Amino acid sequence: MNTTAPRKAALIVGAGDATGGAIARAFAREGYAACVTRRSADKLQPLVAQIEAEGGVAHAFGSDARKEEEVAALIEQIESTVGPIEVMVFNIGANVPESILTESARKYFKVWEMACFSGFLNGREVARRMVAREMPASGHRGTLIFTGATASLRGGANFGAFSGAKMALRALAQSMARELGPQGVHVAHTIIDGAIDTEFIRSNFPERYALKAQDGILNPDHIAHSYVMLHRQPRDAWTHELDLRPWMEKF
Amino acid sequence: MNTTAPRKAALIVGAGDATGGAIARAFAREGYAACVTRRSADKLQPLVAQIEAEGGVAHAFGSDARKEEEVAALIEQIESTVGPIEVMVFNIGANVPESILTESARKYFKVWEMACFSGFLNGREVARRMVAREMPASGHRGTLIFTGATASLRGGANFGAFSGAKMALRALAQSMARELGPQGVHVAHTIIDGAIDTEFIRSNFPERYALKAQDGILNPDHIAHSYVMLHRQPRDAWTHELDLRPWMEKF
Amino acid sequence: MNTTAPRKAALIVGAGDATGGAIARAFAREGYAACVTRRSADKLQPLVAQIEAEGGVAHAFGSDARKEEEVAALIEQIESTVGPIEVMVFNIGANVPESILTESARKYFKVWEMACFSGFLNGREVARRMVAREMPASGHRGTLIFTGATASLRGGANFGAFSGAKMALRALAQSMARELGPQGVHVAHTIIDGAIDTEFIRSNFPERYALKAQDGILNPDHIAHSYVMLHRQPRDAWTHELDLRPWMEKF
Amino acid sequence: MNTTAPRKAALIVGAGDATGGAIARAFAREGYAACVTRRSADKLQPLVAQIEAEGGVAHAFGSDARKEEEVAALIEQIESTVGPIEVMVFNIGANVPESILTESARKYFKVWEMACFSGFLNGREVARRMVAREMPASGHRGTLIFTGATASLRGGANFGAFSGAKMALRALAQSMARELGPQGVHVAHTIIDGAIDTEFIRSNFPERYALKAQDGILNPDHIAHSYVMLHRQPRDAWTHELDLRPWMEKF
Repeated sequence: MNTTAPRKAALIVGAGDATGGAIARAFAREGYAACVTRRSADKLQPLVAQIEAEGGVAHAFGSDARKEEEVAALIEQIESTVGPIEVMVFNIGANVPESILTESARKYFKVWEMACFSGFLNGREVARRMVAREMPASGHRGTLIFTGATASLRGGANFGAFSGAKMALRALAQSMARELGPQGVHVAHTIIDGAIDTEFIRSNFPERYALKAQDGILNPDHIAHSYVMLHRQPRDAWTHELDLRPWMEKF
Repeated sequence: MNTTAPRKAALIVGAGDATGGAIARAFAREGYAACVTRRSADKLQPLVAQIEAEGGVAHAFGSDARKEEEVAALIEQIESTVGPIEVMVFNIGANVPESILTESARKYFKVWEMACFSGFLNGREVARRMVAREMPASGHRGTLIFTGATASLRGGANFGAFSGAKMALRALAQSMARELGPQGVHVAHTIIDGAIDTEFIRSNFPERYALKAQDGILNPDHIAHSYVMLHRQPRDAWTHELDLRPWMEKF
Repeated sequence: MNTTAPRKAALIVGAGDATGGAIARAFAREGYAACVTRRSADKLQPLVAQIEAEGGVAHAFGSDARKEEEVAALIEQIESTVGPIEVMVFNIGANVPESILTESARKYFKVWEMACFSGFLNGREVARRMVAREMPASGHRGTLIFTGATASLRGGANFGAFSGAKMALRALAQSMARELGPQGVHVAHTIIDGAIDTEFIRSNFPERYALKAQDGILNPDHIAHSYVMLHRQPRDAWTHELDLRPWMEKF
Repeated sequence: MNTTAPRKAALIVGAGDATGGAIARAFAREGYAACVTRRSADKLQPLVAQIEAEGGVAHAFGSDARKEEEVAALIEQIESTVGPIEVMVFNIGANVPESILTESARKYFKVWEMACFSGFLNGREVARRMVAREMPASGHRGTLIFTGATASLRGGANFGAFSGAKMALRALAQSMARELGPQGVHVAHTIIDGAIDTEFIRSNFPERYALKAQDGILNPDHIAHSYVMLHRQPRDAWTHELDLRPWMEKF
């Protein structure tokens, strides 16, 4: 689909890796204008080109998701120049294990700022827009999806910072779901439990990556498929949380 | 789809209510021979007729899901006369609140027998067949879905029997997923958190039922849609557990 | 303490191993008549002798905790010949791992019957007595403690039966706490996460047992100490659940 | 106990309310030099006087628990002028409900900074000292206790900030327990589920406070008793998490 008519927007915050990219492409295929962000817009050009080559519409935005003013300006820009945001996916991670004994205050803060505080800023800003709009006939104003991880459920050794940020993000998603669900906003949280087929895993965990041959790591397109499914759910049967994990993953 | 070629079977254990019926119809639409069971097959004829009217294939079986021999005989019959079971949905509930002080031993046992022990018997029997077959090219031998409830997560006052059965069923699903996932069997558990559009709710909770007008109770077809989605997931991104709840439901 | 005055009773269901024995001794030291049960009373004589040697009072009862009539008769006998039961500890386990594919229906049932149904029968029967008595000035009618395990929290591979029974027991404890707490009955559940210094571990897991030298397995007396602590808590600050685990145990 | 011999120290971070005060007094009664902190030391003088009147030893420190340098300086000062810190209790809360739609970025950050980041700074700094010391004969180097709340377990509507901070603190406690337990440091987390008998509750929730007459709110001394119990546990049977709740509290 690729028309010149006004489109609704899907905002993918943290579209710098394969997962965010796949999610953006999937929503573009659904007819949304995929608004993709990361700190530097330059690096998003290949993604935009790919979406356009697939017949979709995409816009790249350089924006620091940790800065309140930048987030507010970004949302305003999208809403005024692209269209109303009907989907937001928050997909920023920051997984850097470290012993509690050597963890720096700076890094502990940075992990939380990236993986949780940014989620709050973007989620709040988009939610404000959604609830301010007239309720559509479907009763479904829009969808906010927060990407979680195994660490969203438990604090493993050396994962104090990452798990702290991820559990806090999960708390945010739960709290928003309880407040905003009755206002027609679908808030969901995913638990991605396993390695994903990304450049990061390929470079840093080659043995893990080798499991790809037998579907032992997650395909970003399949994650994206679940996100689209969440957004499509009718409001009498919304999923707040689901996990996604390769068949052979221990859990 | 409705051919005379051999079909794979989808077994719906507990197809007596609207939920089981919707799940059976949904898998029939996917091309499966829907094998529906409850204690008395007679009551399943309208469902079979409905599926056939929609162009699908369905078989009704009267079978007591709590009896090991009956379950074994049923599975054997389906596998030898219909086709290999590729999907099993265990959908029997038994929610009858009672104070712990007045709960009878007989009822406490019956609730567990219906809502948990039957799940074990059927799940084990189908799993044995699935793992004994040659691994298909997809690496996905089949799917087992267990229907859970809010009580699967917590034991509320007066819900000792029901919650006990439901938590035990969840334990079974988790244990099976961890053992059978690496053998190519997708085991999933759903948390249905809310009233469903069934005759039971209509008759017994009319105020609740009235919420249907605003999508405040779950549509069985939408539950069924999620079950089909679970079965379709590629094996690199399986969901073990998801919740389903109306937008306005408190949780 | 050892007087001829009427004593209150502490019932320890499943006093056949070191843990139940230590709990019985601990409550005897608190001045309770320790009423200890297992299927055959004969095997309890050494425990009774030990408690008496320590200056305590103990009574052994042979009783099948899975039989409603036997449980009812036992509680009646204790209440009429020993004294009112102020503490009940349910301490029966039945951990026998097995693949879901080879698990027998008989064993699946037996594990639940021993580890969960017995807990229901004993818990209900004692609770009925407790709530029927006049509220004491303390507002605390008595305490019911259910012993849980790691499997109370998750269903591991090959632990479908045991985990099912343990999760159901936990559901029971939660449900009873929510119903009976406001009636002055303290219901608690413990998560024993690790090997205990028992004959069973010594015989079957010698490598594990060797960790005893460095406190790597649980001392039954320390478990018992926590149980007495739970019973002593004032009613404004009751604990419903706590875990106990050796310092070096992975979790 | 009140000697002139060198004492070990118990550091209570956030000793400004009744709970922190009761915990400090309890550890002072155990023979520890109670080192109590809050932003302004002046307000701690009544607590110090009370502990001294009870025959204990106490030292008040004005310190901002959110500032890395201040925390490091405080720990150094205590260790060099009072004695080795054997117990740390982190007891700072910051519960201010707010709709996600009106929550300010500044407040969202402040709540996390107070209720979680401070816990990281203090926990890390004390842990570093503990693991650097020679292992005592007991194998127990010391205890770190983090105070949690109902919001540590779930994100309620309007509790996104508080629950986020509390879940992150719980993640920290879990991660530290898994890393530091095998090094002889007992890390525990408590779930305080109910109103506490504090000036805050008395002023702001008079109806809730009225439940005090029937033990419906938590007595700080009883919370403190559980904290001392946690510290005294032998290392073969450590509790990582327990809840504390009035008998009549819904949960």
